[in-house]
Amino acid sequence: MIRLVERNAAVLIIGNEILTGKIQDENTPFIARELFSIGIRLQRVIVCPDEIDVIARDLDALRRAHEVVFTSGGVGPTHDDVTLDAVAKCFDTPIARSGEMEALIRAHFGERTTEDHLRMALMPVGARLVHGIDVTWPTVAIENVYVLPGVPEILRWKFAVIRKELDRGEAFFSEAVFTHADEGEIAGLLHELTRDFPSLVIGSYPKMPGAADHRVKVTFDGKERDDVVTAADLFVARLPAAAFLRRESAR
Amino acid sequence: MIRLVERNAAVLIIGNEILTGKIQDENTPFIARELFSIGIRLQRVIVCPDEIDVIARDLDALRRAHEVVFTSGGVGPTHDDVTLDAVAKCFDTPIARSGEMEALIRAHFGERTTEDHLRMALMPVGARLVHGIDVTWPTVAIENVYVLPGVPEILRWKFAVIRKELDRGEAFFSEAVFTHADEGEIAGLLHELTRDFPSLVIGSYPKMPGAADHRVKVTFDGKERDDVVTAADLFVARLPAAAFLRRESAR
Repeated sequence: MIRLVERNAAVLIIGNEILTGKIQDENTPFIARELFSIGIRLQRVIVCPDEIDVIARDLDALRRAHEVVFTSGGVGPTHDDVTLDAVAKCFDTPIARSGEMEALIRAHFGERTTEDHLRMALMPVGARLVHGIDVTWPTVAIENVYVLPGVPEILRWKFAVIRKELDRGEAFFSEAVFTHADEGEIAGLLHELTRDFPSLVIGSYPKMPGAADHRVKVTFDGKERDDVVTAADLFVARLPAAAFLRRESAR
Repeated sequence: MIRLVERNAAVLIIGNEILTGKIQDENTPFIARELFSIGIRLQRVIVCPDEIDVIARDLDALRRAHEVVFTSGGVGPTHDDVTLDAVAKCFDTPIARSGEMEALIRAHFGERTTEDHLRMALMPVGARLVHGIDVTWPTVAIENVYVLPGVPEILRWKFAVIRKELDRGEAFFSEAVFTHADEGEIAGLLHELTRDFPSLVIGSYPKMPGAADHRVKVTFDGKERDDVVTAADLFVARLPAAAFLRRESAR
């Protein structure tokens, strides 16, 4: 539950390959961790197929409901790369070739440059290019939407630049307690702590017996480090001693 | 693009742990592959936080737009397990303790059974229990919605039973061609094949140079095996010979 005033974000993963199970989405976990580390709450992820109308409709809902939106996928030169057309449709703006992008593409592909390569120079009118000093390809952004590729390595390079744009020195703090208890045994205690620490997000994650060294991992997340640590302290203190396994801090 | 009349599905992943990047979602890839193997198209995945109103609203949209919907997560006994309340809210029905579920829970936990364990016996009124001969815990289903746990091992056991319910002997066929070409070089050819084989979904997935043995993987998916094979044959035949690496069939 979100109780703090904080920035929030959404991700739109565009990819038939994820929906058919051909490729596992590595970009959502990466973006989720990055946003957590700069104190932006990822509130929503949608995976949709490579269809202009669906992408445009989803993006429109996300960009209105969230402060920052990232799309991933569908930005190459082939027939299934329709994300920029969808972004233009979402913002009701035409799409046109960017001279700067065309120059970059021609410099990269040289004589092998095709008209299809140059499709990658198309940008929604009104979009801007986000540059990093050590990244060849700038990222297309329009209002609160960043358009990222699906290839994980390139997404990570580009995200490093965006992260700098978004980072305001905030962060979430997180404490994790690993226990041998089952969830039914600690539910009452967690309910009390949820009530007593309304600014925290408390999570309880069970594992199958034998699948890990612990039965339940309990996490305490929040922007106030003191609250996070105090809640975890109280949880450990009230837990039956035999149920405690270990504790870890993040950030 | 979906051009065939076919069954479609959506998945709603309920989990702050995915949105904060603490845990990578293993259930979407599993369900995606399973559905593909029985010819059901996964059209949409949403990841949302553990909040009743958000879950209920998302589920309501998904169940109206898709033939089958799976939820994953939020079905344990702790404060953050609110999925069944949300399902009840979505279907505008009360929630009540199932005698059958209560008996199963008491048999499992014995004298250690707590009121919190018994929260797991709560079901939306009007829901049914889907049983498998080799699965201890039945799955709650209501209309076209199956309510699955977040723990991957349990989800897989339960899904095996649901798969039997849904399997009508259909499947998607898939051929993959791995090439050394870059996407700009094959975009025109793929565009033609997309036009000539409207019943197929053709995908093009680039890799970073050095990240794999191929540059682009091209996939041809469809319910008509002949179309799938013919389109892949034509692609290979028209590809510059030096660009061809290998070909794989699925199912």
